[in-house]
Amino acid sequence: MKSYKEMTKEELQALKAELEKQYIDAKGKGLSLNMARGKPSPTQLNMSMGILDVFTSHVDPVTPSGVDTRNYGELVGIPEAQRLMADMMGAPYDNVFVFGNASLPIMYDTVARSYAFGVLGSTPWCKLDKVKFLCPVPGYDRHFKITEQFGIEMINIPMNSEGPDMELVKKYVESDASVKGIWCVPKYANPTGLTYSDDVVKAFAALNPAAEDFRIYWDNAYAVHDLYDDDKDELLDIIGECNKAGKPNMIFEFCSTSKISFSGAGIAAMAASKENLDWVKSTMSVQTIGYDKMNQYRHVLYFKDINGIRAHMRRHADVMRPKFETVLKHFDNELSELEGMVSYTRPKGGYFISFNAMPGTAKEIVFKCKEAGVTLTGAGATYPYGKDPEDSNIRIAPSFPTVDEMDKAAEIFVLCVKLVTIDKLLA
Amino acid sequence: MKSYKEMTKEELQALKAELEKQYIDAKGKGLSLNMARGKPSPTQLNMSMGILDVFTSHVDPVTPSGVDTRNYGELVGIPEAQRLMADMMGAPYDNVFVFGNASLPIMYDTVARSYAFGVLGSTPWCKLDKVKFLCPVPGYDRHFKITEQFGIEMINIPMNSEGPDMELVKKYVESDASVKGIWCVPKYANPTGLTYSDDVVKAFAALNPAAEDFRIYWDNAYAVHDLYDDDKDELLDIIGECNKAGKPNMIFEFCSTSKISFSGAGIAAMAASKENLDWVKSTMSVQTIGYDKMNQYRHVLYFKDINGIRAHMRRHADVMRPKFETVLKHFDNELSELEGMVSYTRPKGGYFISFNAMPGTAKEIVFKCKEAGVTLTGAGATYPYGKDPEDSNIRIAPSFPTVDEMDKAAEIFVLCVKLVTIDKLLA
Repeated sequence: MKSYKEMTKEELQALKAELEKQYIDAKGKGLSLNMARGKPSPTQLNMSMGILDVFTSHVDPVTPSGVDTRNYGELVGIPEAQRLMADMMGAPYDNVFVFGNASLPIMYDTVARSYAFGVLGSTPWCKLDKVKFLCPVPGYDRHFKITEQFGIEMINIPMNSEGPDMELVKKYVESDASVKGIWCVPKYANPTGLTYSDDVVKAFAALNPAAEDFRIYWDNAYAVHDLYDDDKDELLDIIGECNKAGKPNMIFEFCSTSKISFSGAGIAAMAASKENLDWVKSTMSVQTIGYDKMNQYRHVLYFKDINGIRAHMRRHADVMRPKFETVLKHFDNELSELEGMVSYTRPKGGYFISFNAMPGTAKEIVFKCKEAGVTLTGAGATYPYGKDPEDSNIRIAPSFPTVDEMDKAAEIFVLCVKLVTIDKLLA
Repeated sequence: MKSYKEMTKEELQALKAELEKQYIDAKGKGLSLNMARGKPSPTQLNMSMGILDVFTSHVDPVTPSGVDTRNYGELVGIPEAQRLMADMMGAPYDNVFVFGNASLPIMYDTVARSYAFGVLGSTPWCKLDKVKFLCPVPGYDRHFKITEQFGIEMINIPMNSEGPDMELVKKYVESDASVKGIWCVPKYANPTGLTYSDDVVKAFAALNPAAEDFRIYWDNAYAVHDLYDDDKDELLDIIGECNKAGKPNMIFEFCSTSKISFSGAGIAAMAASKENLDWVKSTMSVQTIGYDKMNQYRHVLYFKDINGIRAHMRRHADVMRPKFETVLKHFDNELSELEGMVSYTRPKGGYFISFNAMPGTAKEIVFKCKEAGVTLTGAGATYPYGKDPEDSNIRIAPSFPTVDEMDKAAEIFVLCVKLVTIDKLLA
């Protein structure tokens, strides 16, 4: 078929009439499909139910390391869980704290701590006139909400196929002492699904920040979330690189089992230098007596070690892969006429596909999908302040619906993209 | 036996020589007993092990209210847990949020939220020159650490047998707009074990604060922790009283199951007005996607309702009662010669007994106990900044040791009290 670009006005109008008929049909089906959030499907959650059977009343609640998981104490987690989470991040075991049910509150608390008390003796951010964060875009809306809430100015950093534009990152970080952090999802990024290249990781470690309290917020949320066993992205270990570069304090790494075991009933961890962790501990010891060690132990008893997690994630991949492939099949087959006008990523893991529509059409596509029963993440959500300057990026979250639902949803999505694009071309 | 007060110098010296022999004997036993923290004993924790058996892989993870406890969502807790915790506090179900594994972080976050963002539209505390909290003393060290960390000035309020000195509370709260809060443990208080009288609760509700963002931090940690079935303290419901007085926003109430189920693996809740809860939600929704709903559901499945909790707590009482009685037996039997010089409380519930030694002797008593193998909460810990102006108060925590250990520990404690008191009298 001819590219939309080559079509005459009349051809576009004829096509539009035909697509509108399809759209009215689709609406008539009364669908209710949700691709808005990166929620695991019940099928995936069912795979973790065994976690509930490993720590019953017949099991010794005292860990091999000697901790009664039922009582107070062990602020930084049980040693067995520290080891499990360290292996997931590829970080040294001594550099890892294990926390509660998710990593988002740990990231929030880290910002909050910096805001109220300052990082390792620096001026608390609440006492500064201006604090800025760099935000590779498109990115994770919940990261941006945190910095927005604390009144931190967010600066968009474009993402390319290797990761964030590191020249721009370097320029900001090295020239402006009010730049205190950068939000990164370095592997199977939210929402692009792409992984930072070794050069990008090395460029991060090579930064010479103007601010002593500048930190890289390295949200390694999808460390073990590969779709293909024989074609995985490998992320260079940034803690090792920062150590080599003599900047061990520049990095906070986060991870969790939210998308491994249960979303909201997993365990979360942070890896950082000893100095950084001592700083975290100094305020955390006032905030809590300790996180839920029974759930930490439950995870250790079930997964045993990183190999247990990897085996489990291969089963997840078997569920996720067809969903990703279904979406991409629709895109590949049905969007060729829009080549050069739209683009999308082809992730090898993670939870998202990132779609770039023609500038100025994303909001309208999301609206049209909604009208036909397909809920997407709000257009703009992948940008700070919810403002996509191009109104182009749409995050596709294929995890929750079934393959069949995904098939229907992708069909409607493609239809809406076409309709809105034609409208734009005719406008 | 003669009171120490009536003894001559020579009599005291003779007694001291005798007690010192006993002390050397005691030290020789190489004991290692810990009465420092309010930790439940393994016997109590064993009573809760059934919690681990009610939510296995064979149980539907979807609640009767329709929530899949394994997935994201339900920021304010599952309805079934809201009801359970509401009943524990005697608060309306709509006024309750259920959170994570303990209430301390909820209180911390409430202070942190007020500090960074202000209470319900008021100026954030971090932007004010001076913020003050009232601290009934002796009180809970972990409360005081929170306000200390945020640089909040703490003002001691003496406790009497009815609760805090409400005339003084009223004076500060109604005249000084920098007074933003007061820490209360209203039932079986930490460490006095006493319960606020109805008059005191009503006096709280009748306050007319100078600051619009003044809040009562009502830590109802021991709501169901009675020692005697037929002789319980009853705490008037402050939320009802504040509503009657037309000040629904003045109160934040907190509770948890930390000392009911597992310490660190329980569930926590907050009760407050709708306006207050909306404010909490507005920032909490950025901090977290939700707390551990599986653990909430586990608690609901096990306890079923408030009657289940009450039955469970009667079993706890059977374990705690003899420990309290052992300590009090030693005090009653062996401290009569010190009448008028020392005093102690006789709680009907909770986790602590409060001991007032002769002014200027508490630190030395704690030190001497430690030398003989009995660890107590550091003297001063029950006061803001760790400074007991009288150096008199010592918190006794009888929960963790066995009755037999408690017997030995109380004997040594009494011995140390006597020795240090004589030294003081001879000085």
